[in-house]
Amino acid sequence: MITTIGIDADDTLWHNETIFESTHQKYKDLLSRYHDPETVEETLYATEMRNLELFGYGIKGFTLSSIETAIQLTKGEISADEIKTILDFAKNMLKHPVELLDGVSETLHTLSAQYELIVITKGDLRDQERKLSQSGLKQYFKHCEIVSDKTTSTYGRILSRYKIAPENFLMAGNSLKSDIIPVLEIGGTGVYLPYPLTWAHEKPNLPPENHKRFYQLENIRELPELITTLLKAD
Amino acid sequence: MITTIGIDADDTLWHNETIFESTHQKYKDLLSRYHDPETVEETLYATEMRNLELFGYGIKGFTLSSIETAIQLTKGEISADEIKTILDFAKNMLKHPVELLDGVSETLHTLSAQYELIVITKGDLRDQERKLSQSGLKQYFKHCEIVSDKTTSTYGRILSRYKIAPENFLMAGNSLKSDIIPVLEIGGTGVYLPYPLTWAHEKPNLPPENHKRFYQLENIRELPELITTLLKAD
Repeated sequence: MITTIGIDADDTLWHNETIFESTHQKYKDLLSRYHDPETVEETLYATEMRNLELFGYGIKGFTLSSIETAIQLTKGEISADEIKTILDFAKNMLKHPVELLDGVSETLHTLSAQYELIVITKGDLRDQERKLSQSGLKQYFKHCEIVSDKTTSTYGRILSRYKIAPENFLMAGNSLKSDIIPVLEIGGTGVYLPYPLTWAHEKPNLPPENHKRFYQLENIRELPELITTLLKAD
Repeated sequence: MITTIGIDADDTLWHNETIFESTHQKYKDLLSRYHDPETVEETLYATEMRNLELFGYGIKGFTLSSIETAIQLTKGEISADEIKTILDFAKNMLKHPVELLDGVSETLHTLSAQYELIVITKGDLRDQERKLSQSGLKQYFKHCEIVSDKTTSTYGRILSRYKIAPENFLMAGNSLKSDIIPVLEIGGTGVYLPYPLTWAHEKPNLPPENHKRFYQLENIRELPELITTLLKAD
């Protein structure tokens, strides 16, 4: 019996990867007189992975890694004004208006009448709070958990904090690695809502199609009906 | 009757401002051929305040503001290698070993036997988690709250999450603005533990010396005895 629904935020409730993608494009344009786009992309990703433990997820760490990569790829030739442009990319990302995915508002409205909703997201504390606040969705959530990573122990800690049994917990999100696999592992239900774009770091996994508590939907609108079906089958 | 003790982390449990201070010094040295130290300090602070809403607290936002300030103060003359040096300052801060303040371990050991302890701190999510984990103090805390700001509503949310009445809550920390004033305002008890250095942004307030639930101690070691006295007086 599902009583509590955890929902990811970036690329589940609102568009996020499209904003990163557009910044990546501008970044590659900026460095195009030094290197081809593939080299820029690969080197930036390598820097991000090397710095992940120190910087964590989010726009600020991404920006620090972008500056580091630009200095490295231009052998120190990049100008201060070009670095200023990278800082401006960051500010534009942080100020970017929140654009909800199709069906999100209505679905949360429906679900919140019957279940306890918790938003569970990674990233920078203040940035995620800003987006939640701007989204107009805050009213639907009983709790908001901004976490530094999404592992089995992260979910274990959240469930124990709110005294939720894993069998009563369903998590919906666009990352198999962060939203689905760890939740299935601790005994919860996982609903995968693929987003057209996925950051390389989030996509090593294949859907666990044969897992009995794994579901995949095309649109969040289908979630209330799926849960009703699950409850009937109980 | 006090049942729960909230404790700030940076400059209450471990040294933090000294690390920023030493980075400020290196930063002023780096820019010394362009400007005098006072101008560098003032301009950096102005940039930090302007960016605070977007970047929040913590080393990553501080570093982005440092880079922006360096470009501004040198009119774009600063070299990529010098900016690389600022990035290295950031990494060194993020890797800096945790140095506990005098008396912290023993005091938390004593307090945790009798009260529920919660660490309540601002800053970058991952960085604060790393410090708590390295500090060896995690075992003493029932909960850990890393927040984007410390206002009356922040404390209100935490107390309501853990079902704590304000009159049962005491907060100890080195910032009057963040740790003491808002807690007194919601009806809790505030224990001010001054640290020799305070970031400009945290020091607009004077101690509310006549407030009946305000206390000031010189060392965290004195906290258990103060609480015992308060309980006897109840």
